[in-house]
Amino acid sequence: MDKKKDISMAVIKRLPKYHRYLGDLLKNEVDRISSKELSKKIGFTASQIRQDFNCFGDFGQQGYGYNVKELYNQISGILGLTREYKTIIVGAGNIGQAIANYTKFDRLGFSLQAIFDINPKLVGLKIRDIEINDIDGLEDYLKKNSTDVGVICVPSKAAQNVADIFVRNGIKSIWNFAPIDLKVPEEVHTENVHLSESLLTLSYLMSQDEN
Amino acid sequence: MDKKKDISMAVIKRLPKYHRYLGDLLKNEVDRISSKELSKKIGFTASQIRQDFNCFGDFGQQGYGYNVKELYNQISGILGLTREYKTIIVGAGNIGQAIANYTKFDRLGFSLQAIFDINPKLVGLKIRDIEINDIDGLEDYLKKNSTDVGVICVPSKAAQNVADIFVRNGIKSIWNFAPIDLKVPEEVHTENVHLSESLLTLSYLMSQDEN
Repeated sequence: MDKKKDISMAVIKRLPKYHRYLGDLLKNEVDRISSKELSKKIGFTASQIRQDFNCFGDFGQQGYGYNVKELYNQISGILGLTREYKTIIVGAGNIGQAIANYTKFDRLGFSLQAIFDINPKLVGLKIRDIEINDIDGLEDYLKKNSTDVGVICVPSKAAQNVADIFVRNGIKSIWNFAPIDLKVPEEVHTENVHLSESLLTLSYLMSQDEN
Repeated sequence: MDKKKDISMAVIKRLPKYHRYLGDLLKNEVDRISSKELSKKIGFTASQIRQDFNCFGDFGQQGYGYNVKELYNQISGILGLTREYKTIIVGAGNIGQAIANYTKFDRLGFSLQAIFDINPKLVGLKIRDIEINDIDGLEDYLKKNSTDVGVICVPSKAAQNVADIFVRNGIKSIWNFAPIDLKVPEEVHTENVHLSESLLTLSYLMSQDEN
């Protein structure tokens, strides 16, 4: 699997979309699909699709199209969806609660282990049978429990501090909903979901319509 | 402002970030900043920053740096943050409730007018004094109330239908949280927030660490 190392971020970013469309095809009991048919559904060109799949190995057979199940399983493997990622959420406000309640993430393998918040009104409450703990116990928890993914749903002022606690206790992946750019060592993966930035793209496009 | 028309999406996507950093500087009462200093904070190169700002007009003076307040206001204007966008949310589940509760969006000018859901248990409840309406009333509401932005927080199966109702009632901007790619006319702006895709990028990067 040495080939993997050279795959560009652009290709990686398209994989979840392939995964989603192939999952839908599987549900609809479609066995085989050509790059051309897939292109119509997904909106990438057929040649783009063939090129992307080639990065990862030999998924298709000329003239026969792709075996949907095989392709789906291989992409699941590439996406790392064949194992469990122990996940914790820090910040149980609006977004934190929504994420904690979203069982789809569990189905993808992100298994929610613990939730932390600073607000005494929230501490002790449960979301999906998981009690919200006081944030003072975060560092201690991480020392005792190996954790793969930390989700940051605290206000921006508190986010870097939470990220620092994550990093010094060995968390290697951060899913960040706070509207700041975290400073973390290079080997720590960070995925940002900056909702305001997404919304401001919309307001920009709307303001352009008026000109 | 003819220049605006040719600005690439890449530049536009960076504007919200400039807006956020300049807003922080303003709060900290910083009057002027050079592209070099801004570069250290924001992580783009100084020449990138100068190039971006040049797209929109003359914001700085060689050797004196940028006037933070002026720059902030001009970027706010470019981002269309100087007016109100009447916004509705369809789908009051986890994500819909989180978005509805997030007052920051109001402060940016996205003024929440109405919320709709199909679930009789939710209909009639209030979020921030706004009652959740039955989704059966959506089309009628849109015919009577001019609406700028529709937020889709329903499951994927229902999302295209909601988008169709939006489009045929004149909504020009859709903020979509459903994990599907909506089919809408070219003149309708769509911003997707695909949370699972963001999470799968993390799992991919983690699985790579193991190789």
